[in-house]
Amino acid sequence: MKNQPTPLPTSREQPILSLNAFTGARAALAPDIAALVERRVRSFGAGSVLFYDEPLKIVRAEGAYLHASDGRAYLDFYNNVPTVGHCHPKVVEAVQRQIGAFNIHSRYLFDIAHDYAEKLLATFPPALSNVVLTCTGSESNDLALRLAARTSGGTGFIVTRTAYHGNTAAVTEVSPSSYKRGGPPAHVRVVPAPDPALFGNDVAQGFTDAVSAAIAGMEADGIRFAGLLVDTIFSSDGVFADPPGFLQGAVDVAHAAGGLFIADEVQPGFGRTGAGLWGFSRHGVEPDIVTLGKPMGNGYPVAGVVTRPEILSDFCADFGYFNTFAASPVATAAAMAVLEAIEQDGLVANAERVGRHLAGRLRHLQGRTPITAVRGAGLYLGVEFGTQDGPAPDIAKGLINGLKQRGILIGAAGQYGNVLKIRPPLCVTTTHADQLVEAIEDVLAAG
Amino acid sequence: MKNQPTPLPTSREQPILSLNAFTGARAALAPDIAALVERRVRSFGAGSVLFYDEPLKIVRAEGAYLHASDGRAYLDFYNNVPTVGHCHPKVVEAVQRQIGAFNIHSRYLFDIAHDYAEKLLATFPPALSNVVLTCTGSESNDLALRLAARTSGGTGFIVTRTAYHGNTAAVTEVSPSSYKRGGPPAHVRVVPAPDPALFGNDVAQGFTDAVSAAIAGMEADGIRFAGLLVDTIFSSDGVFADPPGFLQGAVDVAHAAGGLFIADEVQPGFGRTGAGLWGFSRHGVEPDIVTLGKPMGNGYPVAGVVTRPEILSDFCADFGYFNTFAASPVATAAAMAVLEAIEQDGLVANAERVGRHLAGRLRHLQGRTPITAVRGAGLYLGVEFGTQDGPAPDIAKGLINGLKQRGILIGAAGQYGNVLKIRPPLCVTTTHADQLVEAIEDVLAAG
Repeated sequence: MKNQPTPLPTSREQPILSLNAFTGARAALAPDIAALVERRVRSFGAGSVLFYDEPLKIVRAEGAYLHASDGRAYLDFYNNVPTVGHCHPKVVEAVQRQIGAFNIHSRYLFDIAHDYAEKLLATFPPALSNVVLTCTGSESNDLALRLAARTSGGTGFIVTRTAYHGNTAAVTEVSPSSYKRGGPPAHVRVVPAPDPALFGNDVAQGFTDAVSAAIAGMEADGIRFAGLLVDTIFSSDGVFADPPGFLQGAVDVAHAAGGLFIADEVQPGFGRTGAGLWGFSRHGVEPDIVTLGKPMGNGYPVAGVVTRPEILSDFCADFGYFNTFAASPVATAAAMAVLEAIEQDGLVANAERVGRHLAGRLRHLQGRTPITAVRGAGLYLGVEFGTQDGPAPDIAKGLINGLKQRGILIGAAGQYGNVLKIRPPLCVTTTHADQLVEAIEDVLAAG
Repeated sequence: MKNQPTPLPTSREQPILSLNAFTGARAALAPDIAALVERRVRSFGAGSVLFYDEPLKIVRAEGAYLHASDGRAYLDFYNNVPTVGHCHPKVVEAVQRQIGAFNIHSRYLFDIAHDYAEKLLATFPPALSNVVLTCTGSESNDLALRLAARTSGGTGFIVTRTAYHGNTAAVTEVSPSSYKRGGPPAHVRVVPAPDPALFGNDVAQGFTDAVSAAIAGMEADGIRFAGLLVDTIFSSDGVFADPPGFLQGAVDVAHAAGGLFIADEVQPGFGRTGAGLWGFSRHGVEPDIVTLGKPMGNGYPVAGVVTRPEILSDFCADFGYFNTFAASPVATAAAMAVLEAIEQDGLVANAERVGRHLAGRLRHLQGRTPITAVRGAGLYLGVEFGTQDGPAPDIAKGLINGLKQRGILIGAAGQYGNVLKIRPPLCVTTTHADQLVEAIEDVLAAG
């Protein structure tokens, strides 16, 4: 295709999502696990994606720990959905209470949906004063694309090269990491992640120029630009957070070209970066549309889109939009409990403090280990591995399984799958962080 | 557009979804309701869709009743999501227990997801042996469209004229009832609902011919046919159920043209028709893909796609698909409790018995009231109103608000909005049905 600016990487055939996948060597499994995997493959078929060479069977969870059927407690440095901690008492109590009282769609009135909407919106810039609640981050990004297309009059979107924004038909098109064959369609253009290894000292200018070139390429092909959609911590690209503010130029370029800026806060949102609740505010930029998901209900399916009233009303003039399970009393009670737990447990400050401690200790390993970079903010860290031959996904994969043997859960990301992705429940402590660092050292030493 | 076979109705500008909408005459409202509506419009903006001229504020729900802030208990003949009854003890207990134990995504193993998947799949024809769990009916239909496109190699879909299948970008395209302006895109063709008023005594042949003509029209425009997608009770079209089996010809035509048949069971599924669990089985047809939603978790967000393994594996060769909140232990525990409650409470038989009683009594009103037809199966009934001037949506709208004044909740559907849509929790009794019939008589008599 003419002017497709950045071809997809050809160095891997599998999407990042399956980097840590169970590959089917069932003979080595414990009999109860093997039997469950067998049943799973029969029912879920090709849709079955499991973690680990030896999948874990979970039987209980609490705080920062998942308890497995092997009798061990695993320290969870992977799961960002249970963001205030597994089975947080506040969330558990809120869901238990509300599901016993009533659970109905939002074409009727009830207090909790509006108490929550107001508490949530108070955390955003005043212009972003409307919220549409949905059930999943995918539904949120799907709606965001439609809002941006309607407001801009365009159809073209720009995303980063290894982005993941969700699983609907429209959102998969803007999620290059989901493609196992080929690349995105013509209306989707990819730019490199804001990687210092690529752009050197001026990530801001480099990323701005890349977005600018992508818009120009799109327009040269007769495709009108609709918006720039980024996860503001660039998680599946390998975690890129610094320097704060580097997003401003790209947002300005998008606006100047008549497009919208959509901040996907599914990964960094709800306090994870340790610098306020939202990843975009750390960059000092104001999105036109913000999408929310995973951590919003600590595992209860609730998500949302926050935007300006006119963006929503223009869209609603063309289409009816209703979401049956969204904005229900149980969903909003769960989400309210999450916001309250973040405040009462001081989780933003904890993310900053523990994240800084952890990043500092990991950076001390650089030089004497194959760690080539430690990036991120708060409790969203990326630890990159490389050798003289380049990116080292095998080291990352070895660590994932080695850490599991040592009772710690973690995952990987990045264009080459060579970046450990650290995003634990926000209740982890510096002691937990020390355990992780020591286990990483131990696995690397064991080779 | 050339060969667009059936233009959208021009007789109404509002989608069916908003037929029963609160229109904003706030001065007449009780002060507490007015204040809550005011807050709602501020936060939800144009996305706020409320029921009734005087919206109801719900404070509690149980069985067949919603309890409102006005102190009244409303008999619920509208809500099909709480299908086994509001706050069914089995579902409440299952969610309360599991949310306190653990709630995590399905890349780890746990028993309940597989116990549920097997129990669910056992209710389908043997060839439909894989399930992908999702969070919403919209996500299910979105995935179904992609599966059908991949397997058929086509892009064109046929749906009924007033169909509603969900709210994502792709699914809205196949949901004509969501369009407030214009019609569906070129790859979506609409056929009339299987309406005896249109097709006379041979609904089967008429509907088959309409599908056939739509495929021919699509192919004449160079669009390859991918599939026929129908709600097997044709709910938003106005409820069309008879004669059982009328779908066979259309399914055969779709298959002969290389397309797939997608049965959307979000409305009729889980026993509502009183003839087994699924609407398609009442017609004796075997779908290639079945989509599930609303009633599946009695209000907990859980949904799914059931299909043949090769359809899923072909798709998964091209794209990664993972759904974070789906197939979680809480979602599958809720869904399991629903299947068990349907069995233990004998709800399929109850739907048949109460539905037959209710339809019989309503048919007795024909002739001496403006009821022109009573259609449906089990506890999915459509009651059509007309006068010598044609369809009478005003009578339906008057009944919706008149029944509410008499403590009964109900909605409307159909191309002209003139069909009362009866789809209560499946636990309603013949006494409840009698109350409804008597209240309808009373409202009609009051004029």
